[in-house]
Amino acid sequence: MHQLNPVMRACIEECLRCYSTCLSTAMAHCLEIGGKHTERKHFTLMMACTEICRTSAHFMLLGSEHHKHVCRECAEICGQCAKDCERLGDMQECVDACRQCAESCARMAA
Amino acid sequence: MHQLNPVMRACIEECLRCYSTCLSTAMAHCLEIGGKHTERKHFTLMMACTEICRTSAHFMLLGSEHHKHVCRECAEICGQCAKDCERLGDMQECVDACRQCAESCARMAA
Amino acid sequence: MHQLNPVMRACIEECLRCYSTCLSTAMAHCLEIGGKHTERKHFTLMMACTEICRTSAHFMLLGSEHHKHVCRECAEICGQCAKDCERLGDMQECVDACRQCAESCARMAA
Amino acid sequence: MHQLNPVMRACIEECLRCYSTCLSTAMAHCLEIGGKHTERKHFTLMMACTEICRTSAHFMLLGSEHHKHVCRECAEICGQCAKDCERLGDMQECVDACRQCAESCARMAA
Repeated sequence: MHQLNPVMRACIEECLRCYSTCLSTAMAHCLEIGGKHTERKHFTLMMACTEICRTSAHFMLLGSEHHKHVCRECAEICGQCAKDCERLGDMQECVDACRQCAESCARMAA
Repeated sequence: MHQLNPVMRACIEECLRCYSTCLSTAMAHCLEIGGKHTERKHFTLMMACTEICRTSAHFMLLGSEHHKHVCRECAEICGQCAKDCERLGDMQECVDACRQCAESCARMAA
Repeated sequence: MHQLNPVMRACIEECLRCYSTCLSTAMAHCLEIGGKHTERKHFTLMMACTEICRTSAHFMLLGSEHHKHVCRECAEICGQCAKDCERLGDMQECVDACRQCAESCARMAA
Repeated sequence: MHQLNPVMRACIEECLRCYSTCLSTAMAHCLEIGGKHTERKHFTLMMACTEICRTSAHFMLLGSEHHKHVCRECAEICGQCAKDCERLGDMQECVDACRQCAESCARMAA
């Protein structure tokens, strides 16, 4: 990744990892199990987390100064998604990815 | 568009129109003309505007409550993009699309 | 939309309409009703249709010659999505949007 | 990434790496240098490569059977992008990322 400082590069990688984990978990785990996992509130949060992580990475790759605000929103949504996945109880990979991405994005937003 | 209220539906349409206008103008007009149009600051703003409009529409279509924060950032970036396109002087379609989208997103964010 | 011929412009609009309809219907209708609507095969097809429509529009807006191949795949997926939505029986808006988009993309791919 | 086999997981990682490399190189290197690097044909190819890699990863993460066709197109576009970046001569990181992604996607498409 061209000319990016190591802290931003690490944040892009966390965002893309969280994007990948949330999307694949929603599709392969939540849809398979159903019940609470496909309740509208939880599934919408999974999809919102997927999209904001994808977009945060994009803003950092663009080199846009606005990445700070997008990263702040990403940290917020990832934090909520981590809590909701923890509540459901069988989604530890997603909890971990969301927490690490939230921390990394919070640092970028500071 | 399923079950969406008319105000949100109109905002989604403004976002997708601004996305389409910014992206096609950047690729067919800015790259063709060059000079100030491909200076990094201007072109990055065009690409950031393209991406945030695409994402704002996505959040409203998801039905995520977080659309408010994304729309607020969209209004901010579209406002800046409108000003920068006006400065260059031959991008009126883009100025208009950005302004209308900024107004519509500002209402959604309120 | 800058310098785009009317046929391509119409196809972009069909793609963005189908994207909007599929995504909002999946989130507000399928997740609400559940049962067959959140079976993995149907929901995955809805999400695949959403993504390929978004991407087809993007390729045409970029002015990439590769839009033909992306539009061909879009026509294929939209056609399948229309059939699957018709099978479920209460998704006429989605059936119509998918069919119109499939026809428009098939013409672009020819 | 939930329940994905190792070959597909590796391909998703190649796609996201190529996406990241092409986008950051286009914005930080091509726009900075200008000349041949912002000629419409080259820059459009960079943007098309960015988008198809993003979409290929998405289709694999969705678990859609249509990922094969999207990966085939991704292999095609990445191959062209690698050649064009090699022609310009100072874009080796991009050449390498495109080649590795093209190989990985060609295997997924087979």
